[in-house]
Amino acid sequence: MAAYEPKNPGYRAAAVAMFDGQPAMRTLGIVIVRLGPGEVELAMLHSPEFTQQNGFIHAGIITAGLDNACGVAAFTLMPREADILTVEFKTTLLAPARGERFVFKAEVVKPGRTLTFCEARAFAEHEGKITLIATMTGTLMAMLPRMATSPAPGTSGA
Amino acid sequence: MAAYEPKNPGYRAAAVAMFDGQPAMRTLGIVIVRLGPGEVELAMLHSPEFTQQNGFIHAGIITAGLDNACGVAAFTLMPREADILTVEFKTTLLAPARGERFVFKAEVVKPGRTLTFCEARAFAEHEGKITLIATMTGTLMAMLPRMATSPAPGTSGA
Amino acid sequence: MAAYEPKNPGYRAAAVAMFDGQPAMRTLGIVIVRLGPGEVELAMLHSPEFTQQNGFIHAGIITAGLDNACGVAAFTLMPREADILTVEFKTTLLAPARGERFVFKAEVVKPGRTLTFCEARAFAEHEGKITLIATMTGTLMAMLPRMATSPAPGTSGA
Amino acid sequence: MAAYEPKNPGYRAAAVAMFDGQPAMRTLGIVIVRLGPGEVELAMLHSPEFTQQNGFIHAGIITAGLDNACGVAAFTLMPREADILTVEFKTTLLAPARGERFVFKAEVVKPGRTLTFCEARAFAEHEGKITLIATMTGTLMAMLPRMATSPAPGTSGA
Repeated sequence: MAAYEPKNPGYRAAAVAMFDGQPAMRTLGIVIVRLGPGEVELAMLHSPEFTQQNGFIHAGIITAGLDNACGVAAFTLMPREADILTVEFKTTLLAPARGERFVFKAEVVKPGRTLTFCEARAFAEHEGKITLIATMTGTLMAMLPRMATSPAPGTSGA
Repeated sequence: MAAYEPKNPGYRAAAVAMFDGQPAMRTLGIVIVRLGPGEVELAMLHSPEFTQQNGFIHAGIITAGLDNACGVAAFTLMPREADILTVEFKTTLLAPARGERFVFKAEVVKPGRTLTFCEARAFAEHEGKITLIATMTGTLMAMLPRMATSPAPGTSGA
Repeated sequence: MAAYEPKNPGYRAAAVAMFDGQPAMRTLGIVIVRLGPGEVELAMLHSPEFTQQNGFIHAGIITAGLDNACGVAAFTLMPREADILTVEFKTTLLAPARGERFVFKAEVVKPGRTLTFCEARAFAEHEGKITLIATMTGTLMAMLPRMATSPAPGTSGA
Repeated sequence: MAAYEPKNPGYRAAAVAMFDGQPAMRTLGIVIVRLGPGEVELAMLHSPEFTQQNGFIHAGIITAGLDNACGVAAFTLMPREADILTVEFKTTLLAPARGERFVFKAEVVKPGRTLTFCEARAFAEHEGKITLIATMTGTLMAMLPRMATSPAPGTSGA
């Protein structure tokens, strides 16, 4: 991966604040493990209340971890005044989300003024073994103040 | 949409049982509103604990609703002995998930012995107005008993 | 589908000119069949030189038709001075591209100042029978003159 | 990437024969540059007849290269008697396809008896500089003789 130069010198505090501002992350028990310019690692312990019919973590919850990893990774490269929205993502589920702990690693593939493209991978730790269980590719959008006051294109509502 | 003929005459009870077997759906407060061969409608009330930094429902939670709608819709057309796994999906986020209630509608685009393809749409109800907020296209896989005993291809893990 | 109001009164001529400016469309033999605000239908005859190993049209060629249908549909709703770029798309292949003629229908799901979201479907006509063979969901981006002079965000390259 | 063990000792000849059996690859001028178990590199020279309105190679043609790279990579790990079909893919376009030569690199992320998951990247060579222009994630399906005689699941069909 290329080494990226953050536009916001306070990117780390900004990214942590954005992450901590999300009640969904607290509810799911997802935490930041590692954070750098254009890359992030999140982790989550198994919770029975977020499983599907076979006892594995639900694909939507794995997706929430992957999406947030992409969002934080993209956000580290955005200017100070930007807010961030997810445009779209694709999740591929390679193996059941079986394990005691799950890790979500994301990195920026291409940053841009408006759009940033990320890739992420989810891993399950089960009885000491680590398995790649899912991948994501996603598009994130920087919402700058000027854009936020005019009707927000494509992502803000009618 | 084409009218589909279920292979399992007890498809309705089977789909409800599969849905009810998912603790994640209870935790997220997602319920079945309507169910037919190859189509389903789910609903969820707003929960502050599943929001992101702007107070909207997190994209991963919306995705959990869309994915489950696809899964139930696909499951209604599978044979009695099948289990179901999601292979992949793409979520496009058209507008913020702002509202008091959310609806997830899915339908089968093409059923198959192994793979079933679905499309789903998420709507937000906010102050009496309904807005399309997200779409999904997804691939679901039927896991038949014979397949489940041999190493599960593509989706079950090493 | 919602009825859209074009921003460019000359949208029809502009869309035809953009389409006709693409040598790839001529080479593939793809033509515009129908065109309206936010929707388009393209068609292509079978060509042996664009087949894969089983004699069906190659998935990449079907994707070229779907992508162009999305692009023209989105372009009809953009302002006069905009250029257009595809951000991303997903293609799902439901059935082999077997037939004498192929039709690509696209419509805008949500237009926006920067991003426009489209859906498209490809159909094969084979011995008098029409089959849905592929679907696409895609994101298109309007490139406005101001944006084109500064380093093009997200899609134009370093 | 993991080192994969091909099931078919003649995987190389089989993959080359499958590739050479595709008229679309000849027409587009795409050739195999490198081939190993679960990985492949293809290349294509610029052709004016496959450009879009700005003189860049059309996204559908780039997708044809990426899809074929995924298909050949997946095929190297399939048993001798298998045929292969693409189930779905997502293409993200990071930069315009501007250059004299284009390279498509794919690798298998997870092989399976029925489904194989691949990732691919497209690069443009322009005036001595190499730029990542597009990425793909795709799902490929092995069609085994038994499956081919019964109604083909998910991809063939009415």
